[in-house]
Amino acid sequence: MAEKKELTRRDLLGRAGLAFGGVMAFGALACSSEDDDCPLVEECPTPEECPPPPEPGPQVANLPYQQFLPANYQLDVAAVKETAYHGYYNGGCCHGAFSGLLTELAKVGQPFNLLPMDLGKFGGGGIAGYGSICGASLAGILIQNFVTSNAGARAAMMTELMRWSEREAFPKYDPATVDPAEVAAAADLQLDWSAGNLVNLGVVTGSHLCHASVSTWCAAKGVAANGKDKLARCARLTADVAGKVAEMMNAYLSTGAFTAIALDEASKACGTCHGAGSTPKPVASGMACASCHSDKATGHP
Amino acid sequence: MAEKKELTRRDLLGRAGLAFGGVMAFGALACSSEDDDCPLVEECPTPEECPPPPEPGPQVANLPYQQFLPANYQLDVAAVKETAYHGYYNGGCCHGAFSGLLTELAKVGQPFNLLPMDLGKFGGGGIAGYGSICGASLAGILIQNFVTSNAGARAAMMTELMRWSEREAFPKYDPATVDPAEVAAAADLQLDWSAGNLVNLGVVTGSHLCHASVSTWCAAKGVAANGKDKLARCARLTADVAGKVAEMMNAYLSTGAFTAIALDEASKACGTCHGAGSTPKPVASGMACASCHSDKATGHP
Repeated sequence: MAEKKELTRRDLLGRAGLAFGGVMAFGALACSSEDDDCPLVEECPTPEECPPPPEPGPQVANLPYQQFLPANYQLDVAAVKETAYHGYYNGGCCHGAFSGLLTELAKVGQPFNLLPMDLGKFGGGGIAGYGSICGASLAGILIQNFVTSNAGARAAMMTELMRWSEREAFPKYDPATVDPAEVAAAADLQLDWSAGNLVNLGVVTGSHLCHASVSTWCAAKGVAANGKDKLARCARLTADVAGKVAEMMNAYLSTGAFTAIALDEASKACGTCHGAGSTPKPVASGMACASCHSDKATGHP
Repeated sequence: MAEKKELTRRDLLGRAGLAFGGVMAFGALACSSEDDDCPLVEECPTPEECPPPPEPGPQVANLPYQQFLPANYQLDVAAVKETAYHGYYNGGCCHGAFSGLLTELAKVGQPFNLLPMDLGKFGGGGIAGYGSICGASLAGILIQNFVTSNAGARAAMMTELMRWSEREAFPKYDPATVDPAEVAAAADLQLDWSAGNLVNLGVVTGSHLCHASVSTWCAAKGVAANGKDKLARCARLTADVAGKVAEMMNAYLSTGAFTAIALDEASKACGTCHGAGSTPKPVASGMACASCHSDKATGHP
């Protein structure tokens, strides 16, 4: 046991000299499952099953990644949208938007192609189905965070995405190919999802949160929140959001700057009494007020 | 130019054989700033400035990372909290919680130590100050997503974190050392932040969103949302949330399972009419209803 302990995973990781040769030592290393210091060996029984390390150059830790994009780089917005749409049916809204954007960025190489393509699967339905922030928007925010060098522009793009999602009539995207899961369930679709009718399915929900966005849309269209029409809506919304992120990033990469759309005038008026520096009821928010505080629209203060 | 084009960054990245030797070729490679294929050279003028690649073994792409934790691994909850508290003053709530948790996990080695320690800086103030999901909770969710193998337990831990944050009286944490920024601003603090008085500063806000949580707490305590007391509150809340994540992870790692606390009874009752499968007003949410829909508490339907 003593000899085995001298070659545990953590020891190996600490030996710079092993480098690539370490892969061989790794897989060949034998230790029992009772050895607390040796879990990786169970995951790498053979050298072929050990993941190869990245090549020299840009690494995941080197935030932000804009520095590794070629000059004049632009995302293919149409490709992002279509991949995001299909990704929705393979892991939800956050996965769809994240993988739609990352699939294009990964073509550049490291460090984009070192990120887990499945990183966004946790975010579906407003994070684990809880109804918090829209998963597609959260995916866009994560990508904006990985890429954008200019801190002010990065925050502005995140603000724009959430604010835009509160004002936009979703869904809009007309997929190039309809997902097999949607075709299989076509008999269960209650609404007309043909391209010509999409304009009649759009609803401005006033919220960047999954719960309010989905519930409001389903109520407006008279469909269940756990049915196939909800899936058809959110798959297209996922493409819409991912496309918006791609368009924003392209604009920023072209100019080096980004300014978010402004808070609505009614919410600005709320701030005259409820500014962050006021008391007794200060408000910390960049959101529109009226969608939740509709009772304050009349007869207030 | 043709010869230079043959050794661009992307070409180098595509040549497995270059491996470590590629670092030298990299830094020595010369190309003009007009060469779109050669941006990395501008970032790596010398070999010393190129980041070294990770060693063989666990890589960032190999989600989830629980497989790389030693058996019987447990996070040091006290260390997580204290690092998270100080991290708040160096990058906000999301950065505090993320770096507090990752600092401990990175001691295990790869792939934890390959993640950007600053990944969470985007999330402060409910993402870029927008007031969306609490950044400390978002950081915890990101860490849970990186680590947890069991998909059901992963979702349950995320649900528990958001639901717990709606019911807990924050702030609670009493830091081992007070942050210099807090000491410098002590003259501006209006509330009594001594350990013995913390219990009188706690408020249950009913929301996992930054906007409602911060605004409600500041209104309850009669302080501004952009003042030093708000910072003192959210620094401690950041430690509270990061500690909760560490405790949940330790419980899960000990048992291999996790079950979230249940939705409150009043919200369950809402679901009898507004279940996700109902029409015309289906609700998609795991959140408590009453904190936002207080007007439905009486006289409804």
